[in-house]
Amino acid sequence: MSDITLINIKEEILSENRELAARLRSDLDEKSVFLVNFMSSPGSGKTSLIVRTLEHLKDQFQMAVIEGDVDSAVDAERVAGEGFPAVQIKTGGSCHLTAAMVEKGLDALTLEEIDLLFLENIGNLICPVGSDTGAHLNVALLSIPEGDDKPLKYPKIFQTADAFVVNKTDVADFFDFDEDAFRRRVGRLNPEAPIFGLSCKTGDGVAPWCSWLSDRVGAKRP
Amino acid sequence: MSDITLINIKEEILSENRELAARLRSDLDEKSVFLVNFMSSPGSGKTSLIVRTLEHLKDQFQMAVIEGDVDSAVDAERVAGEGFPAVQIKTGGSCHLTAAMVEKGLDALTLEEIDLLFLENIGNLICPVGSDTGAHLNVALLSIPEGDDKPLKYPKIFQTADAFVVNKTDVADFFDFDEDAFRRRVGRLNPEAPIFGLSCKTGDGVAPWCSWLSDRVGAKRP
Repeated sequence: MSDITLINIKEEILSENRELAARLRSDLDEKSVFLVNFMSSPGSGKTSLIVRTLEHLKDQFQMAVIEGDVDSAVDAERVAGEGFPAVQIKTGGSCHLTAAMVEKGLDALTLEEIDLLFLENIGNLICPVGSDTGAHLNVALLSIPEGDDKPLKYPKIFQTADAFVVNKTDVADFFDFDEDAFRRRVGRLNPEAPIFGLSCKTGDGVAPWCSWLSDRVGAKRP
Repeated sequence: MSDITLINIKEEILSENRELAARLRSDLDEKSVFLVNFMSSPGSGKTSLIVRTLEHLKDQFQMAVIEGDVDSAVDAERVAGEGFPAVQIKTGGSCHLTAAMVEKGLDALTLEEIDLLFLENIGNLICPVGSDTGAHLNVALLSIPEGDDKPLKYPKIFQTADAFVVNKTDVADFFDFDEDAFRRRVGRLNPEAPIFGLSCKTGDGVAPWCSWLSDRVGAKRP
């Protein structure tokens, strides 16, 4: 009988992705670029959070954005409209960003002129989680209208993100989002990760989030 | 040189899924069960729409629900709490329901006692689209807080669904959702599909949606 060669397609793809992501992270380290990956459902406000953060930290860091979407360039146009370098990755049909896609995004930027780089992943609470992008920090965003039960239904993203932002606090009165229940559910999955409530619309709560992020970038610096 | 055997894993999986879905649909036809697949982002209100529709049509049809989630059984508990048969499928990590998962859900129900069966897909605007569940009708749900730009970013679901529901119209005053722009964008991708604006919270607009759905079920009947 001949030997059997076992080819586990999914594991091979994930393993190749992990290796490339580690190489990207180390390249970014050499160039002192701090990469933050934003993940959420469609419409939670990833682009709005990035634009608010750009505004708030513009005197502190040189920043740029890589936008990921299945289609369209509306998000990159919005970021560019604010005066920051923006790259739009269109995935066609793919449901998350891979390290190979991020590599193409990095190639389109002048990394020597960037300290802090934001990556907006595809709107999806499931698929982006297992795919390392090379980011130093993974931030998961949720918005009040989506409900406080999301940690029960999508536990993996809540287990693995480094920080959480709860957006659209300005409309909290019109939804039955139980903040205590949400914090308890996240706390059981990920007790160390901070949770920032804020409104990208009014700007309320943006300062503490930006101050925490700025500290994280500073802690990475020589 | 030997012959080359080309194995296209993704195409094989999709093709097997399509075959099984067609078989499920034909089994359901034989038993006069009409299956509706609901798809949306996390937190758009799929479960709320299903519960409202159950309430509204309970004198007309015998109904049941198959709930899909990555984890937890909170949605099935809610449906069962309303007095309807409910099956919860937990996918573990999978980002969409396959026909094989739906088949297991169907096995857990007494189909002879059901006219109208609802399937709640995983909260995801991308992955469920390509995977036929065996449903007769595919309904995509969006909510006002998610924004009117979703047809630009997730065109495939807007191209392929049979009908659209826009939920959370009760909070329309607090968001800058441009309904005309949304209808124009959907119309370009899918001019035939109706769009129902409604609020699962207040019940506003639920009647026209239910009346349309009821006609669709009736049209399928002998």
